[in-house]
Amino acid sequence: MSDDFDLPPGPDAGTDSNMFRDAEGHISPLWLERLRAYLEAGRHDDVAMVMAPLHHSDVGDVLEQLDAEERVALVQALGDKFDFSALTEVDESIRLEIMEALPNADIARGVAELDNDDAVFLLEDLEQQDRDEILDALPTFERLALKRSLDFPEESAGRRMQTDFIAIPPFWTVGQVIDYLRKEKDLPDEFYQLYVVDAAYKVQGTLPLDKFLRAQRATKIDAIMNTSFELVKAEEDQEEAARTFERYDLVEVGVVDESGRLVGVLTIDDIVDVIHEEADEDIKLLAGVGDEDVSDTTVDTVKSRVPWLVVNLFTAVMVSFVIGLFGATIDQMVALAVLMPIVASMGGNAGAQTMTVTVRALAMRELDGGRLRRLIRREMVVGVVNGVIFAILIGIVTALRYGDYQLGIVIGLAMVINMIVAGTFGILVPLTLDRLKADPAIASAVFVTTITDVIGFFAFLGIAGLWFGLF
Amino acid sequence: MSDDFDLPPGPDAGTDSNMFRDAEGHISPLWLERLRAYLEAGRHDDVAMVMAPLHHSDVGDVLEQLDAEERVALVQALGDKFDFSALTEVDESIRLEIMEALPNADIARGVAELDNDDAVFLLEDLEQQDRDEILDALPTFERLALKRSLDFPEESAGRRMQTDFIAIPPFWTVGQVIDYLRKEKDLPDEFYQLYVVDAAYKVQGTLPLDKFLRAQRATKIDAIMNTSFELVKAEEDQEEAARTFERYDLVEVGVVDESGRLVGVLTIDDIVDVIHEEADEDIKLLAGVGDEDVSDTTVDTVKSRVPWLVVNLFTAVMVSFVIGLFGATIDQMVALAVLMPIVASMGGNAGAQTMTVTVRALAMRELDGGRLRRLIRREMVVGVVNGVIFAILIGIVTALRYGDYQLGIVIGLAMVINMIVAGTFGILVPLTLDRLKADPAIASAVFVTTITDVIGFFAFLGIAGLWFGLF
Repeated sequence: MSDDFDLPPGPDAGTDSNMFRDAEGHISPLWLERLRAYLEAGRHDDVAMVMAPLHHSDVGDVLEQLDAEERVALVQALGDKFDFSALTEVDESIRLEIMEALPNADIARGVAELDNDDAVFLLEDLEQQDRDEILDALPTFERLALKRSLDFPEESAGRRMQTDFIAIPPFWTVGQVIDYLRKEKDLPDEFYQLYVVDAAYKVQGTLPLDKFLRAQRATKIDAIMNTSFELVKAEEDQEEAARTFERYDLVEVGVVDESGRLVGVLTIDDIVDVIHEEADEDIKLLAGVGDEDVSDTTVDTVKSRVPWLVVNLFTAVMVSFVIGLFGATIDQMVALAVLMPIVASMGGNAGAQTMTVTVRALAMRELDGGRLRRLIRREMVVGVVNGVIFAILIGIVTALRYGDYQLGIVIGLAMVINMIVAGTFGILVPLTLDRLKADPAIASAVFVTTITDVIGFFAFLGIAGLWFGLF
Repeated sequence: MSDDFDLPPGPDAGTDSNMFRDAEGHISPLWLERLRAYLEAGRHDDVAMVMAPLHHSDVGDVLEQLDAEERVALVQALGDKFDFSALTEVDESIRLEIMEALPNADIARGVAELDNDDAVFLLEDLEQQDRDEILDALPTFERLALKRSLDFPEESAGRRMQTDFIAIPPFWTVGQVIDYLRKEKDLPDEFYQLYVVDAAYKVQGTLPLDKFLRAQRATKIDAIMNTSFELVKAEEDQEEAARTFERYDLVEVGVVDESGRLVGVLTIDDIVDVIHEEADEDIKLLAGVGDEDVSDTTVDTVKSRVPWLVVNLFTAVMVSFVIGLFGATIDQMVALAVLMPIVASMGGNAGAQTMTVTVRALAMRELDGGRLRRLIRREMVVGVVNGVIFAILIGIVTALRYGDYQLGIVIGLAMVINMIVAGTFGILVPLTLDRLKADPAIASAVFVTTITDVIGFFAFLGIAGLWFGLF
């Protein structure tokens, strides 16, 4: 390989795949610099050479590191050597940007090489027109399989499933199956179990490969297959399917249509992505961030966050009106204005703690009858105990700060009330949203902090007004 | 089966396993009531009969639904029929409670039946003395394997690994391996790939079962094995191992000791648990909740939450002192006290948004050089844009509310400043914690809200004081 560039020192990072990532697992800056140099110089063969050893996930990581123009340049430099499954590993905004920049014919060629589930993943977020153009450019069999998957609802098991699987009749022997596997060219890329089906493709049993391998050639399949197995409905939500996987420690599960016919399989790698997405969604929704990635544009980010901030502005103004009711009280005793945020802030934090535990328990389906009652009882007691602890602490601090034990008593009383309110609504708000079929992660935080703010200010200013006769 | 109990109406839920879960996937209350009745009456055979069809994860769910005494009663009623792997599916507090109530000899009998990784999982949280007693009661081979796993650090790959795996020499043929698998009795319960090792157990290659199955009997193993494969070090943190799994869509990976010797394997079901734990931890830490489960006792819950609330009390008092600096200003214009929480609250929310995105990006290792710079730039711009949007909104609302456009300008200015501060520190705080090798999820929220509170109050009251000449 000729090397007439002014490249950084060090070993030949391009051919030594160990140098692709540094000790901490980050992509090596030296490696990336070399790739950029090749891209800029249009040296397509060298680009192909340094990219060749990379796993498609690593290619995805490289794409995320590059700038918008470099990404498209990389895909085009690689041409037919670009594995489109790398696009399943990048953030949605980057994926759409690259796919919009490529001619639909190129996408169709790349998609044709993919497993059905990866192809659906790439196509599902495209504009209807682009999608149709790409589908039309595919071979009939692939097109029909993809169309069927795309007909299932978004985020359903049917969307995520792989439509290649190995189905065998129950009356075959182990030997027949092995011979079939050795002969058949068109097998799925990866499979972990065989599906034993009748003529109507109804599943009679499953046979994990490890069990299958231990059986003698003459053994009949129906003598060794598992007759107790899980199946997932194609219309089912992917989160439900993920829970089934986790509950039964599965690596692969069959997907059936309404008539019970085996139409595809879900494998654990898809489910790991779902589990991640789901947890990520909960975290972001709790903080009032939409379905956002670090690679989103500024405009998308503003669009995602403004609605939550508008809601917060509305509730903050509402809370401010509550404080306004006590304007005359504050006017007579400025210390109240100085102290009031403490009560509200403690309530807000205690409420967030209870709420988070409740939201997670709901998400993991941990709140059946008995456990729910125990949780409610516990949170009430925790509210009272924490209320008393912090009432005493803040009471003492306040009494010392202002040399006024009565002010200490007032803030302590308000604290107990607000901590109990925080525990109560920290659990009731997400529970009510869940009963109303809303996602408790979305709006719980806004409701709970508004309640603890209002009650915090109201209790403190109200008790103070009564105690000191300021009304 | 005789049925002299006053049981709830409906089909015979005990023998019909479909009735174990209702339509929504919850354990059927009728089923549970029957189990409780059998337990109370000491009808061990009936208990065993209704429990028999359940998967060990379902047994875990049942245990979580029962009261403390019922749990132990159930385990004892089942006796040798109790599969201890059910205990890997319950919350830590419940697991410890059950294991403390059982004689160590019973636990040893149960643990001896388990896979090595499940056994380690049960033993690792026990008191040293109980653990030693149980280990001493185990057969020598199991004891040594467990001790070796327990010697690896907590939450390491070595702790989570399964020590049963299939290692074969590279010069065997496919036929020889199949014959070996058919003959050998002591194989792992589940396996997805074969490990090709040299005499020193150094891994030469891996062979997924699906690939192995497609090869002819006469094929030599080293002709078809994968020579490019991932391995995990036993000392490595389980989260690192989880990232390797996700990055390369693995279902199983070999674990090697310092000398590169294959000592175990990690399978995807363990990793799914790790992924879940990790996301769960982030969510809870962000909300100031420790490693807490819904089944924790009240005392444990209070213990987990009080430290965070103490920190918050401390910062809230600090913020209150900042407000105190402006006591004279507020005294001259009570409207300031009424309006000031709005600025602080908006800053707190905007800061939480930026912080959450940053914490998650750090957790997923998405912030390499280029992406980090882009994120910082984006958040600055978002802070300015949102600052201007909400400055105008709150400025108008305030001007109308008080009929005083100057007050509107003052609150608007404070809002712009605080939103920019929120964006800046929302990203800098988690980043700094990460650089200092602290978990950014733990303390970010406290720092960020304290900063936005202090700046919010300070900017608003300070600008107002200067503008209206109140100092």
